[in-house]
Amino acid sequence: MSDIPSIDAVREATLVEPKKAKSFSLKGSDTRGDKLFESKKDAKASLEEDALAINELQDALFACKTGSLLVVMQGIDTSGKDGTTKEAFRYTSPLGVNVFAFGKPTEEELAHDYLWRLHQRTPKTGYIHVFNRSQYEDVLVVKVRNLAPPKLVEQRYEQINAFEKLLCENGTRVLKLMLNISKEEQGERLRERLEVPEKRWKFNPGDLEDRKLWDQYQAAYDTALQRCSTAHAPWHVVPADSRSRRDAIAARLIRGELEAMKPVYPDPGYRPEQYEIG
Amino acid sequence: MSDIPSIDAVREATLVEPKKAKSFSLKGSDTRGDKLFESKKDAKASLEEDALAINELQDALFACKTGSLLVVMQGIDTSGKDGTTKEAFRYTSPLGVNVFAFGKPTEEELAHDYLWRLHQRTPKTGYIHVFNRSQYEDVLVVKVRNLAPPKLVEQRYEQINAFEKLLCENGTRVLKLMLNISKEEQGERLRERLEVPEKRWKFNPGDLEDRKLWDQYQAAYDTALQRCSTAHAPWHVVPADSRSRRDAIAARLIRGELEAMKPVYPDPGYRPEQYEIG
Repeated sequence: MSDIPSIDAVREATLVEPKKAKSFSLKGSDTRGDKLFESKKDAKASLEEDALAINELQDALFACKTGSLLVVMQGIDTSGKDGTTKEAFRYTSPLGVNVFAFGKPTEEELAHDYLWRLHQRTPKTGYIHVFNRSQYEDVLVVKVRNLAPPKLVEQRYEQINAFEKLLCENGTRVLKLMLNISKEEQGERLRERLEVPEKRWKFNPGDLEDRKLWDQYQAAYDTALQRCSTAHAPWHVVPADSRSRRDAIAARLIRGELEAMKPVYPDPGYRPEQYEIG
Repeated sequence: MSDIPSIDAVREATLVEPKKAKSFSLKGSDTRGDKLFESKKDAKASLEEDALAINELQDALFACKTGSLLVVMQGIDTSGKDGTTKEAFRYTSPLGVNVFAFGKPTEEELAHDYLWRLHQRTPKTGYIHVFNRSQYEDVLVVKVRNLAPPKLVEQRYEQINAFEKLLCENGTRVLKLMLNISKEEQGERLRERLEVPEKRWKFNPGDLEDRKLWDQYQAAYDTALQRCSTAHAPWHVVPADSRSRRDAIAARLIRGELEAMKPVYPDPGYRPEQYEIG
């Protein structure tokens, strides 16, 4: 087990350093993760251990209610947002973890500011929420496909930073994971979806349209990560070409966030011996 | 009708000028409103005219859906938040105006950041919402009665500014009215509540506790108005010792906001003669 990197090492290797975020680019960012986990076997062992720890930490957090955790999960099609969530929380009770997927906004949602629907889903104290896609879609797909005037999109980076700051200053930690997959690996996975009968349902012709816009999406991600990797809610880029390494890295980061909240079971405020059950 | 002040004059007389807000104090602020409306008769005539205009403007706003209006109504007990809302919208259909009163937060609400419950009630395009008490309670009663650590309260002014900026930049105008009543007039009104049988239900012994904290509340208002009268959402201090003048002044300001949105009925996109109803 000596080949499992420390949580600090994983954090450092994946962090988009806020002070240097302006010069960040996905181009120079790892998609493989084999510097952190040389072998898949190590990755799997690490994930197993972390998923057990995450369960225990969540239990304590739910009991002591000292804060809440929001995991923002972003990444292009096939990067594994569902899979990562499933694996990191494989031992955690669904009672304390809620996952919300943000797809195309409804008419009701579009009639409000774009953060309105997200704010309704932020976790209350004691809870972990995972956003599968998030406020960042409003500066990603919306930007690439021109779904809002550029001037409005331009204002959103600061608005998102202020929104996340509000959450952080009020007891919600925000962990932002960008699952970073290479264009070659995405090609593989889309082919797999077409060829493997039991994966065919996942295939969506729209994915191919988005794949044609690969460079535009990468550029939109670059801008989002440059402008929204803040001291209160920095971005982490998780290498996602290997499923097992990706899951292991994400689990280390989630465990790290939970440990930083130092959840402990609260003193019940009475001694059990006070009571007699007749 | 020549004695009705222009909307611009009312706006200017009540505005907490953002650039000079730092030196603002309620101490120097008018509670009477007789410089704007010399006679109550003028005030009543102005209100009647504005209430009719507000109805028409709301209709057009609902049809064209070019934006939305949030009226934040603040003021200490007996200052007339309910009455002002009722009078300004006396001719407006409740379909397009929703009023939300924010009292003591529920457990569910307390488990989220304090802006969570407010964000859920912001108006969608085409609508007018009135907040009877608002996000500002979290820097007023919460501050005066020490319901949250001072360090957290201190962060809220900037958080509120960012939240309101988000709304404004996404199509919601924010009109903030502080109903400014004198301590003498509040005394009158509380006595009235005790003495007049049909007003007795409104009396709440807690109001007297708050009255003892008069100076602390005034100071908390000063700070809120100093720090949150912004270019995108400035504060207006409405003299509230005279009910008719207060209502007339508030209605002028609400009408002004709606006119600034320039709501016009949209072109239906077809000529009625295209259709034949058999």
